[in-house]
Order: sequence, then structure tokens, then C-alpha cells
Amino acid sequence: MDKPLRLGIAGLGTVGIGVIKIIQRDAALISARAGRNIVISAVSARYPSKQRDVDLSRYSWEADPIKLAQRTDVDIFVELIGGADGVGKDSVEAAIAARKDVVTANKAMLAHHGQHLAEQAESGKTCIRFEAAVAGGIPVVKSLSEGLSANTVSRVMGVMNGTCNFILTRMEKAGLPYEQAFAEAHSLGYLESDPRLDIDGIDAGHKLALLAAIAFGTRPDFNNVDLEGIDQVSIEDIHAAADMGFKIKLLGVAQRTTCGLEQRMHPCLVPATSPLGQLDGGTNMIVIESSAAEQIVLSGPGAGEGPTASAVIGDVCDLARGLRMPVFGQSAKNLTAIEKSQSELPAPYYLRMSLLDKPGSLAKIAGILGENSVSIDRMRQKRHDSRSAPVIIVTHKATPAAIGEAIDQMSHSDTITDPPVAFRIEHV
Amino acid sequence: MDKPLRLGIAGLGTVGIGVIKIIQRDAALISARAGRNIVISAVSARYPSKQRDVDLSRYSWEADPIKLAQRTDVDIFVELIGGADGVGKDSVEAAIAARKDVVTANKAMLAHHGQHLAEQAESGKTCIRFEAAVAGGIPVVKSLSEGLSANTVSRVMGVMNGTCNFILTRMEKAGLPYEQAFAEAHSLGYLESDPRLDIDGIDAGHKLALLAAIAFGTRPDFNNVDLEGIDQVSIEDIHAAADMGFKIKLLGVAQRTTCGLEQRMHPCLVPATSPLGQLDGGTNMIVIESSAAEQIVLSGPGAGEGPTASAVIGDVCDLARGLRMPVFGQSAKNLTAIEKSQSELPAPYYLRMSLLDKPGSLAKIAGILGENSVSIDRMRQKRHDSRSAPVIIVTHKATPAAIGEAIDQMSHSDTITDPPVAFRIEHV
Repeated sequence: MDKPLRLGIAGLGTVGIGVIKIIQRDAALISARAGRNIVISAVSARYPSKQRDVDLSRYSWEADPIKLAQRTDVDIFVELIGGADGVGKDSVEAAIAARKDVVTANKAMLAHHGQHLAEQAESGKTCIRFEAAVAGGIPVVKSLSEGLSANTVSRVMGVMNGTCNFILTRMEKAGLPYEQAFAEAHSLGYLESDPRLDIDGIDAGHKLALLAAIAFGTRPDFNNVDLEGIDQVSIEDIHAAADMGFKIKLLGVAQRTTCGLEQRMHPCLVPATSPLGQLDGGTNMIVIESSAAEQIVLSGPGAGEGPTASAVIGDVCDLARGLRMPVFGQSAKNLTAIEKSQSELPAPYYLRMSLLDKPGSLAKIAGILGENSVSIDRMRQKRHDSRSAPVIIVTHKATPAAIGEAIDQMSHSDTITDPPVAFRIEHV
Repeated sequence: MDKPLRLGIAGLGTVGIGVIKIIQRDAALISARAGRNIVISAVSARYPSKQRDVDLSRYSWEADPIKLAQRTDVDIFVELIGGADGVGKDSVEAAIAARKDVVTANKAMLAHHGQHLAEQAESGKTCIRFEAAVAGGIPVVKSLSEGLSANTVSRVMGVMNGTCNFILTRMEKAGLPYEQAFAEAHSLGYLESDPRLDIDGIDAGHKLALLAAIAFGTRPDFNNVDLEGIDQVSIEDIHAAADMGFKIKLLGVAQRTTCGLEQRMHPCLVPATSPLGQLDGGTNMIVIESSAAEQIVLSGPGAGEGPTASAVIGDVCDLARGLRMPVFGQSAKNLTAIEKSQSELPAPYYLRMSLLDKPGSLAKIAGILGENSVSIDRMRQKRHDSRSAPVIIVTHKATPAAIGEAIDQMSHSDTITDPPVAFRIEHV
């Protein structure tokens, strides 16, 4: 067996502690699989004296993660600090400059600066691996960038934020309004310290940008991900969708179109009986559609100590076994800038609005849809006692542009009380 | 870019032709991902003049696959001949002896001779990769042996033979008797030339033995897989299971027990609403339960030209990228012999029998179950006009030994017309 492979671990939150626990507990098994002993040389975290659920006494301590990244007794720098910018990124750059390989769970950093870091790594002949950045313990980065390397990918989609899926599942199963399900997720500690990272689809959008880069050979480009959060999903929408055989999911989709690449993360209706529709709670699911392997579906826990640490150590073992590949599956120089596609792919849409109870209201709405070439598949108006009536419309396939224009016109008409809610019905 | 990586492809059936088509069509993409040009030097097949749907004129032709494996212009020998023994295995051995890496789809060869071949490869410092041998295009060998290398696996299970799943699905959806669904699969060309390889669970058992070796660090040992085929599943069973919320699947399970490793491939009842229960047609699904990543589920097409060729080329790209690892994920010297566990894990069972219509029959059956410590959860006896009554019993958890003993005693009693049918209800 070769000499040991030595890790420096920066960031001792849930994932960092999980990595150390597994390496302490299963060292023999992991070394047998890696073909080398995997050892931890040194660690770093913001609060040295914090009580942690693991014995750190045998490791050197570095107050500065940049120093950790430069240590001569570190072969792989494991970055678990997080954040798009700041010391996480600085220390990764220091590691690359010091010719160390990097294993990271930092989706924000890679979604924003992945191209730059990949170029740096490539010119320094080091590797950056990031399985833990996407969908926890599910080996989706590996499946896409290695297992499916023979394939031209047509669409990657999935549920990539367990917290949002937990909230939507609680709304549906317990009939809770959004605010209450959100409060429950918060009290269970499921939300990021800035909850908007979850709720607005930012965290999931980071993941989508990384998968899209691998799948389509494009530069990771989070700024071109269209984001819509789940806070506009009401319990009425959940019920109305269920009545028609759908569930509402925060769905990420990256897909080639005739004029570029579409990346979107937004609440969508999917058939209740589909694998995505049946995904409950914190589980993640990724669907990959490609030229040769056809449709591959991967699911599992999308976060948590064990699953994310599993992904980190998997990457370490790959490096131990000699796998050397570019960060996003092909040379960073080959990655092309995304030509952003104005979401042009037509789809059926779910619309909900509050129609003022006066003669001609419905005719006006129907007229606006017709003028924008949007035809109605189904419509229902519920009994009501107030001065406005809840109306649900499911359209036939229409372009996002046509739906957007119709909604804009409705909002400026004098027939509805609030702007309509519109969710795409994704073909899955 | 390094010098080209040169393939020699032996076997030009569906998969071989699929590999050549993809390499011809997507050479640029695959080379960009592999970091090297991937080229085909030479091919070999039994019938040189057979009409094939691809241009072979630019490749050298070798009548003898062993010669192909030894060619100096071949770096990777791609074995797509098949068969546990014979020229497929001989040529793989020749390739290893000539210090070539091997990529193969040959599950029978590896399930029977994997240990021997892995030892040979290891001493020759060559690699054998076999993603295509298990579950077509699903990167399950990769996920298990690489992505989950940090995990102690507790159970691997799944539906691994699309043809059997097609037959069971057709029985269920169309209400066809087994013989008719079998005939349909046959006329569609879904069956192996020896249909017993599918129907008896042999093909799926080969796959299970390979996954078990990786998951549990044991020598691949097909002879220790308990096999039961699907030809004992009747349309009555399908209906009765459905009435109780179950589906019947040919399920493979490899699982540690207190006294060894259990490997079984047999018809099981699974909840109709579970992902395995909802798996229709030719799709495969593998569930991996492990210490850190928890439960990972992978599904996709389990066979066919594109999916299987995708897996072959994925392995080729891994080798191009420098991945060097032992055949079953750790050194063949470390793999332990399976201590065969006498299927000891208790489970509920589904029993169906034809009870003779005479006083005391049911009491006798119930008595036999009770004497073997098998308690009844549910029972139903249908109205009948003949001299025997169809009876369905679902038991509480019981050991396979107790069920086996009870069935034996029932068969020797004078209360039933035929030996009872018993299927395990697997917790999924």
C-alpha cells in the first residue's frame, strides 16, 4: 500500500464532524477501498474551544484555514466552510496555488466562481471534487460526470432542496398553510441561517447550475438560473393541484432549447403518481435524460451529517485511486458560455386568480387568454360568498412568454383582486 | 491531450454495435470528457460477413478474440461475447496476461469466476471494469464501489431483470396468465436465447452476486445465491396480492445476517405504493442501504443497446481518466468467502393453497402453522364451486425455516390438492 493520503479539514460544522467520525470509525474499511490509508493531519474551525462530539486531540489545529491549505503534511484540502466568497474560497485558492487537491461541499462558491476555480485548478494540475455540494449522499455528480460520459444530455431536473420539499409535503399532508409549515421547518432546524437561501430556491439553484455545467459542457452560471421561491405556493394551490392529480414541487430544470440553455428553479406541478410527485419530505431526486442511457433516476437523502460526509469521503477515495479529471467533467477551456434561452419551451400551465364577482369578468379573462393564443384545458370556479371568486384554470401548452403576457394583461384589467398565480406543469 | 486510447472490441451483438455507433457519432464529446481520443483499433465477432448496422471498414478484423486481446495496438479489451466459460473468459484471461485493461458486460463470467479473474488482474496490475454487467445504463457499480466507499452496507436489493418485470407487469396490468405474458415477451425478443436464464432468476442472480461482492467485501459467489423463478407466480397470486396492497416482483436481496451473508433472488411481495412496487416494465431499480448515505435508490433502463453501451463507454472513460481500482472495490486478497446464512431473517409471508372441501381442513392447516410458531395476520377463503377452495393466508413475521417446515407438513397432510405457494413479503 502506498503512503497515507493526508487530509486537512477546514470547517467543523455538521459535515466536517461527520467526516471525522466516519474516518475514525471505519478507517480500515475506507483504507481497504481507497488502497491507501486515509489520515487527517490537521483541522481548522472558527471556534477552537467549541464543544464537539468527536475527539480532535490527535490532529494539529490551524486557526487560519489558508495556513491549513498550505501545510506540507496535507495532500487534500477538504473545504467545508461554505459561502460563495470569503475565507472558504480564499482557502480553496490557497490550496490550488499550493498544488493540493480539493474536496468541497461548497455549492455557492462553485456556482458563482466555478469557472475561475476550475481554470486555476487545471493550470495547477490539481483536482476539485464536489459530490457533497449536490444532493447530499446521492452520487449524482459522479453518475453524471463519469457514469454517463458517453451521453449527450437533453434534460437534468429534480428536487434538490429537502427543506422546501419538507415544507410542501407538510402543507399537503397536514393541510397546513405555508407560514405554519415554514415555522415547523424552522423549529426543527431544517432552514439555513438565512432562510431565503432555501425558500427562494437559491441553494437549489446553485446545485442546478453545477449539474448543468457537467451535463451541457457550459460554464457554471448561477446568474442565469431563473428563480422563483415556494413562498407564493398557497395551501389552496396544493389542494387544487391535488384535486387534478398533481403535486407541487420546487423543481429545478436545465434543458437545451433551440436557442440556448434554459435553467430554472421554480414551483411546478408534476403528476402525483410520478416518482417526482411521490417524493416526500427531505428526500432529493434527480432525473437525467440522455442519448444512450435514456432516463436515469437517482434519489436519497439530500442533506445531513452522514449523507454529506459520505459524499466527501467518496471523493477522497476517488483521488486515492488515481482518478484525475477536470472539475466539471471536461477541460475548463472547453466549457462554453451559456446562451441564455428565454424559457421558450411550451408547457401547460396552472393559473389561480380571484375573479371579481361582476358580469363579464370571466369573459374578459378568457378573452385575454385567447388573444395570447393560450387555450383553456380545464377551468373551475368554486362556490363563494365573498365579492371575489377563486378560479383555477389549466391551460393547454403555451409558451412562458404568452403566459407572462396574459398574466400581465389580467393584472392590469379590473377583473381580478390580485395578480394571478401561475405554475408550469412540467412533463416528467 | 495524451495519445489515443485504443480499444479492441470482441463481440458485435447489440451492445458491441451500440458501443461502435456511439463512438462514431459522439467521438468529440467523449474524447473531451475522457481527456484522450478514444479510438477502435480492431474488432472480432463470430460471423465476419453478417450484415451489421454500422461501418466496420476502418477497423482491423480478428477472427480470434484471443488474438484481438493480444494485439499491440489495443490498450483496452472490450469483452462483449458473454457466457460464464468459453471464448469470452479465455479472451479476458489472454488480455490480462497481455497486461491489457478489460471492460466487460459479462455478468455470468464474473459471477462464476470473478475471484479468480480479479486475482489475475491484480497480480498483472490491470483493471477489469463491468458497469455494463449490472442493470444496463444505471451507474450502480460505480455508485456502490466508488460513490459509497465510505459506507458499511447493510442491504442491497432490487429488480434486476427487466424481462421478468415486464412479464409480471403484463400479468398485472392486462390480467394475463403467466404463459401468455411469457409468450408476449418471447415474441418481442425480450428473452435470452435460453429463457430459463431470465425466468429462473439466473441472470438477475449473477448481477446480485456482483453487487454483493462490492457491498460486503466478499468473493463473488453465485453458487450461494438462493434462486426461485417467476414461473410459479400465477395470475391468482397477482390478483390476491393487489387486493391486499402489494405487487409481486422478482426481487434480489443481499443482506448481512448475524451468521453470514444472505443472497436471494425470488418473487416477493412489496407494497404497491413503494418505489419498487411501482416499477413497471423493463425498468430496473437498485436500493442501497448503508451506514452514512442511508437509503439510495437508482433506477433506469436495465438493458438495451444504448443503455448498456453507455455503461461500457463510461468504464472506458474512467480508465482514460486514470481511475485504477480493484475489480470489486478492494484488493481481491481481502475479499472473504461467504459464510452462507440459512435465510434466517424473519418476514411476513404470503401463502396460497387449495384446500380440500371437507370438515376440519382449515383447522388442520391452522394447526400446522401454529405448531411451527407461525401466526396468521390475515386469511381469506373465496367462494368456490369445486371440491377445493382457494385460501390465501398472510402470516405475521416468521423465519423462512418455520415457513418451510409448515409448508412441508401441509404438503404431506391430506387437506390440500397441491403444494402451497409461499412468497416472502419484503420490507422495502
